[in-house]
Amino acid sequence: MAVPPIATTQSGDLPRGNAVVGQSGGPTSVINQSLVGVIEGLRSGLHAAGVVGRVLGMRHGVKGMTRGDYFDFTDTHQDRLDRLACTPSSGLGSTRDKPDAAYCERVLDACRKGDVRYFFYIGGNDSSDTCRLVREMAVRSNYDLRCFHVPKTIDNDLMENDHCPGFPSAARFVAMACMADFMDNISLPGIKINVVMGRHAGFLTAASALARRHDRDWTSEGIDSSDGPQLIYCPEVPFDTERFIADVDAVYRAKGRCHIAVSEGISDSKGTPIGATLIKNAQTDAHGNVQLSGSGALGDQLGDLLKAALTPAGGKPPRVRADTFGYVQRCWPDPSPVDQVEARRAGRYAAQLALAGQHDGSVSIVRQGSGSELWLGKDNGQPYLATYRRVDLSAVAAKTRHMPASFFQGHNNVSREFIEYCLPLVGPLPGFERL
Amino acid sequence: MAVPPIATTQSGDLPRGNAVVGQSGGPTSVINQSLVGVIEGLRSGLHAAGVVGRVLGMRHGVKGMTRGDYFDFTDTHQDRLDRLACTPSSGLGSTRDKPDAAYCERVLDACRKGDVRYFFYIGGNDSSDTCRLVREMAVRSNYDLRCFHVPKTIDNDLMENDHCPGFPSAARFVAMACMADFMDNISLPGIKINVVMGRHAGFLTAASALARRHDRDWTSEGIDSSDGPQLIYCPEVPFDTERFIADVDAVYRAKGRCHIAVSEGISDSKGTPIGATLIKNAQTDAHGNVQLSGSGALGDQLGDLLKAALTPAGGKPPRVRADTFGYVQRCWPDPSPVDQVEARRAGRYAAQLALAGQHDGSVSIVRQGSGSELWLGKDNGQPYLATYRRVDLSAVAAKTRHMPASFFQGHNNVSREFIEYCLPLVGPLPGFERL
Repeated sequence: MAVPPIATTQSGDLPRGNAVVGQSGGPTSVINQSLVGVIEGLRSGLHAAGVVGRVLGMRHGVKGMTRGDYFDFTDTHQDRLDRLACTPSSGLGSTRDKPDAAYCERVLDACRKGDVRYFFYIGGNDSSDTCRLVREMAVRSNYDLRCFHVPKTIDNDLMENDHCPGFPSAARFVAMACMADFMDNISLPGIKINVVMGRHAGFLTAASALARRHDRDWTSEGIDSSDGPQLIYCPEVPFDTERFIADVDAVYRAKGRCHIAVSEGISDSKGTPIGATLIKNAQTDAHGNVQLSGSGALGDQLGDLLKAALTPAGGKPPRVRADTFGYVQRCWPDPSPVDQVEARRAGRYAAQLALAGQHDGSVSIVRQGSGSELWLGKDNGQPYLATYRRVDLSAVAAKTRHMPASFFQGHNNVSREFIEYCLPLVGPLPGFERL
Repeated sequence: MAVPPIATTQSGDLPRGNAVVGQSGGPTSVINQSLVGVIEGLRSGLHAAGVVGRVLGMRHGVKGMTRGDYFDFTDTHQDRLDRLACTPSSGLGSTRDKPDAAYCERVLDACRKGDVRYFFYIGGNDSSDTCRLVREMAVRSNYDLRCFHVPKTIDNDLMENDHCPGFPSAARFVAMACMADFMDNISLPGIKINVVMGRHAGFLTAASALARRHDRDWTSEGIDSSDGPQLIYCPEVPFDTERFIADVDAVYRAKGRCHIAVSEGISDSKGTPIGATLIKNAQTDAHGNVQLSGSGALGDQLGDLLKAALTPAGGKPPRVRADTFGYVQRCWPDPSPVDQVEARRAGRYAAQLALAGQHDGSVSIVRQGSGSELWLGKDNGQPYLATYRRVDLSAVAAKTRHMPASFFQGHNNVSREFIEYCLPLVGPLPGFERL
């Protein structure tokens, strides 16, 4: 995974000053790898070259920056950085603030006040939009501020990226949880619903399919879904409760049990989230998003729906249980090895972009070798290989990438193409024995 | 951890016939270790000696046995047994059936029909009671059936045991989840409730305290709860909602955030579970227990309670989130190393009891070396050491062990004694870096 040389077409005089780096949005298990990658890249590059003075971390993102609340990484010992990199969640603290023009003006004032010339922001599509806004405002006011975005999201929904740092580790948690929970479902049969994070994109819910045994799952028609989860519902496919009940009924009749993965973001044909309509006292964040995580309401409501619909006349209701994986899926301290390496390198690459004289940009991960056929035991595959490139901030900012149609099989399953896409990312999964 | 020689005071002629082994109740991450331990112990002992013919596994416990539904382990390859031992959940399938006299008569009929003379049952206090009933019925009908119970419960609530196989692994999951989730709570501050399994005993909820940094947590007065969870609520202490709100308010005012662990089994001063009163359409099992797991209702209701009580007049409600750890805590495929070894040995010890001529009994785990001072970095501790002994079935059957008073500190915290008890069991925990 060598980092290719960066074209320096936009290079020129590098402004002298300080650098800031911040973390924004929902934490992940590897976002501190990216933080440390930026710090390492700056210290060994622009700082060593005498261009950058202090390397400062924003406490709680731009919110802390406007208050001058920094952690100074310029002289932090490498041992401490290495421990920080292996610590889940955002070490600097995060923020859900979505800056408007007035807010960005305060960020820019903080840059002027702190002699900041390099601005790095690790986050999702809202964070890249913040980066873009601050950069545009700096350009308009003739303040030379170089702005770079480092991708991070367990939702995996950033444009221009094969996948995003944070997603592989969350996918690993979801796959392992579904593997183990399916064994539980075989042991004490019933209907089990697992609710997975992902507001608009279904990648993380789809990763539940990795829980199946892939050496046996493929038939000439596609996937034999005898292993759980047998039913997978992503936000990209409109959710129809009647069809859902019929799906579950069919599996439950055939097997006496049913294992289901549902995205928290499933929505009806009008785009209304099923969860949002069910959650009482729903909270909204600064982006106007209704709170979907941190509540078991969607799973419980779907469970009640199934109990009511599938109870035979005069008979006992089926055993129905619902779990909502919750925040542990984004911060579980056993990240994917691939994810750890890539998150670190993405951060370092952003610092290298600055060193190469780029004025702004977002780091994108490009897959060179698919790795998938190899991982599935075939001999005609290439080893998995990721490289990094610069893309314009506007190509990523405030946009959402969805699961492509080729990743779906019908309305309640994923395709083999998705499995081959996802399997190389999550790291080794345990092998279970069944009697 | 050598197994001491077993007294053979009750030995005599060993009846010749087959052996059965079954799993009952909620699965754990290591219950298959115990299953394989029993099989190994029988194959190398009574089977090798020509006393036991077939070693049979009951499919779904006594339920499968009454139908003659067995898996024959007599010739299963050791490699397959080793893989099975590392597979979470009950490989043979489990059951929630609680046999009465008529049911036990059918179990005994199945023994006679299958020439079964050795009966092993892996489970909690209900399973040991089944063992006791079947044994008493066999004695009354002059059928020589040797009955042994192997302890298993994530709730850790069996009498006569220092701790129970299954608990250390579940405690490991809870500790790691709370460690990571506390980092999340620091990163995006708010009030976070985590609901932990445990109907009557608070051991598993108490294990959330292992998430704190123990090198810094101890003051002369006891625990400095600056690390989360700051508040821990177990079923042994009557839960008072007004006091709960006041507790959270105090931490939230002081820190701007609050991290809370709550047992699913918390009950009011009359013994009514808080969860049971809140869950609509509650299901009950054959034991008359209301379903507490597989629902997010308790966490959501406690969250709503806090939002309503802590919203300032005319102001915004605090950010409140609730996660219910759910079934992954009992089947997460990264079990405690100590638990894996002990669960295997507990199964093997039961087979050795039979070989030694015992007629019945339950295996209990006794701690010899505390290990705790050593684990906490002191030099006056002994290494952790567990041994095994036989106890009467009636000493364990249908009884519940609660957290002793010395494990509590006040109504919302655990004592240092609990930490020293629990820490050696869960295996190495990751170290996190905080800025």
